[in-house]
Amino acid sequence: MTTRDEALALDAADPLRLLRHQFSVPPGLLYLDGNSLGVLPTATAARVQQVVQQEWGQGLIGSWNSAGWITLPQRVGNKIARLVGAGPDELVVADSTSVNLYKVLSAAASIVAAERTQPQRRVILSERSNFPTDLYIAQALAAERGFELQLADTDELPALLAGPLKDRCALLMLTHVNYRTGRMHDMAALSQAAHAAGALVVWDLAHSAGAVPVHLHRDGADFAVGCGYKYLNGGPGAPAFVWVHPRHAERFWQPLAGWMGHAAPFEFTPEYRPAAGIARYLCGTPPLLSLAALECGVDTVLAAEPLGGMQALRTKSLALTRLFAQQVQEHCPQLTLVSPTEDGLRGSQVCFAHQQIAYPVVQALIERGVIGDFRAPDVLRFGFTPLYLGYADTWDAAEHLRQVLASGEWQAPRFNQRNAVT
Amino acid sequence: MTTRDEALALDAADPLRLLRHQFSVPPGLLYLDGNSLGVLPTATAARVQQVVQQEWGQGLIGSWNSAGWITLPQRVGNKIARLVGAGPDELVVADSTSVNLYKVLSAAASIVAAERTQPQRRVILSERSNFPTDLYIAQALAAERGFELQLADTDELPALLAGPLKDRCALLMLTHVNYRTGRMHDMAALSQAAHAAGALVVWDLAHSAGAVPVHLHRDGADFAVGCGYKYLNGGPGAPAFVWVHPRHAERFWQPLAGWMGHAAPFEFTPEYRPAAGIARYLCGTPPLLSLAALECGVDTVLAAEPLGGMQALRTKSLALTRLFAQQVQEHCPQLTLVSPTEDGLRGSQVCFAHQQIAYPVVQALIERGVIGDFRAPDVLRFGFTPLYLGYADTWDAAEHLRQVLASGEWQAPRFNQRNAVT
Repeated sequence: MTTRDEALALDAADPLRLLRHQFSVPPGLLYLDGNSLGVLPTATAARVQQVVQQEWGQGLIGSWNSAGWITLPQRVGNKIARLVGAGPDELVVADSTSVNLYKVLSAAASIVAAERTQPQRRVILSERSNFPTDLYIAQALAAERGFELQLADTDELPALLAGPLKDRCALLMLTHVNYRTGRMHDMAALSQAAHAAGALVVWDLAHSAGAVPVHLHRDGADFAVGCGYKYLNGGPGAPAFVWVHPRHAERFWQPLAGWMGHAAPFEFTPEYRPAAGIARYLCGTPPLLSLAALECGVDTVLAAEPLGGMQALRTKSLALTRLFAQQVQEHCPQLTLVSPTEDGLRGSQVCFAHQQIAYPVVQALIERGVIGDFRAPDVLRFGFTPLYLGYADTWDAAEHLRQVLASGEWQAPRFNQRNAVT
Repeated sequence: MTTRDEALALDAADPLRLLRHQFSVPPGLLYLDGNSLGVLPTATAARVQQVVQQEWGQGLIGSWNSAGWITLPQRVGNKIARLVGAGPDELVVADSTSVNLYKVLSAAASIVAAERTQPQRRVILSERSNFPTDLYIAQALAAERGFELQLADTDELPALLAGPLKDRCALLMLTHVNYRTGRMHDMAALSQAAHAAGALVVWDLAHSAGAVPVHLHRDGADFAVGCGYKYLNGGPGAPAFVWVHPRHAERFWQPLAGWMGHAAPFEFTPEYRPAAGIARYLCGTPPLLSLAALECGVDTVLAAEPLGGMQALRTKSLALTRLFAQQVQEHCPQLTLVSPTEDGLRGSQVCFAHQQIAYPVVQALIERGVIGDFRAPDVLRFGFTPLYLGYADTWDAAEHLRQVLASGEWQAPRFNQRNAVT
């Protein structure tokens, strides 16, 4: 592509363009941070008000039944299931991604411990570049349960599973799309490699759900967790989700055995009796306002179903990220592309690195209304959400980045003061 | 008290009466279920809309800094600390009560394991009548960590601690006010008894925070958790809170070692390094909409501070529960009072039992607009929130109960069909 008019023509011909009207994007903003916090869907404010004023304010405690609060984790879970290749009643919304990861790692560890014939099978294998909270949770769980967390580089994983860890790996724990590079794993190949090594596999879909097609069943996943506030547009801190393959779901308790995961929570029996299936992965009372907002966010992604669904979104997303990567590589040679150029390896984001100026360049872009984010130590990260971003938006964002670098405006002192969260 | 006019006179003379204007209680409703879900504060709807439309919708990812989202768990935690006798920066809002209980039981178990000279010190002692989710979490934790959950009747606890469990009890885990009877423990005496036995003590304040004065430091607590959606009026599924005595807070990790509890979450280092103090009890990203609503709820309780605070609320609460218990005992002899008549042993609720008709009587009351709840197998439970209930309300609620029983209207078939949640 060589002119902005070409980008405008693609927008005009884009059937997904209509989906943008589902969102309240602030005028003039180019928001390339949907991978961190999705934008506000238009429907959310009214729905949250309904929950606050009618369901809570008027219905009060009765709304657990009359407004369907009690089954909302399952209802929203079933909607998310359609986006990630899971079956009905296999996925629930609960807690945070970190807490859910603890649940599935615990359950997976119990399964491995019960099955393992070799006492040396006690390695939890992950990537050094995995999102830190995943590593922290695995580190804590490993210490408690007598496992050992081993970190490797991405490209080493298949050889490790086929060789030195063949009889030692208990669990492979990976984030499907890397938060810092946007690199996407081949879920089918790595799941198969894990199984061939005698290990189970846990997938974190934080940067995948609503961003790329996911096929948990088809691609051999054992467990999955994911995030509600990124590409699912659920709002700040929206609750997360957890999926367990039906062949594992009822084999063990997860240790966060709260009453919402009990077979009969309102019998108030002193002994825990886990609910059937995935419902035992619920724990305490869910945060209803945030959960209701999540449903509105998930609905914005499901709205693409008549237009081709996740596959159509993926095709557009790849076109946008390819366009952005090409424009920036051509006009900003001082930045190093760290996301894969090969479509099949790239999630829905494009990242560049610069050892010195990544932080102030991102800040200067933000002042221009182009919202990306900085990820320590040296990454400029740009997420692309085809639901509300178009080709001309992408062209313009690349042009802003070119201008920020060409003008040197990033050198202003105000762009070099670090915030608590960046 | 013998006439409704006397109740009206008490309302007229009640300085706390003004606090009712902070709430949107549906007209005509007598809401005696604030112990299950507090009513909607008037300020909440606008605040939640501000978070949705301005902070999320306009501010987007920048609101983590500009709107103070990143420190909200601490800010709301510091407000709750004032209600429960905790110091500044000792208490945070996070996750659910169940999840927080798992954190503190894990940390307490680690402390005991590190300190114990006797290998037989491995009993977690609790009450048979404790809220089930607490028992489920303790049951799961005990199984994982090699402890043993032992359940006793309330009155047996001191003798067990002084005698058979003197060298065997690791942790005493109690809910301060019982969810089904309203009986309140003597926190100071039982904490002392636990310590004398060489055990640590964990208090669940679900039915205490905002309901009765709590003095965690003064009364010797080691750990505490509590609920945001009952007497704190935080809304359905509002996040919970967790407090750890400063002498314990930094001794161990809790196992839910998510990034929000990291010393420097945005450095994204692969190794977990726990934050100083109570902040390490944070885990994942908090549900912001629900958290913001919780702050509005906590503010309604703090609004009593110029009027005498928790002590003044307690005085009125005792007068209301005493009035209700007396009226119902006098006019409804078929019901058995299961809450203590002695003020010092009673929380902010009054419960009656009836082996056959508890459920339909509660349903018939609900149809009259008197909202209490049924707790299996045979309890009629009525919570009293002096922030929005007065003396005439209490008089009227007792009169409705008398009429429901006298008329036999509870026998209608529609009152005998069980809902999922009751």
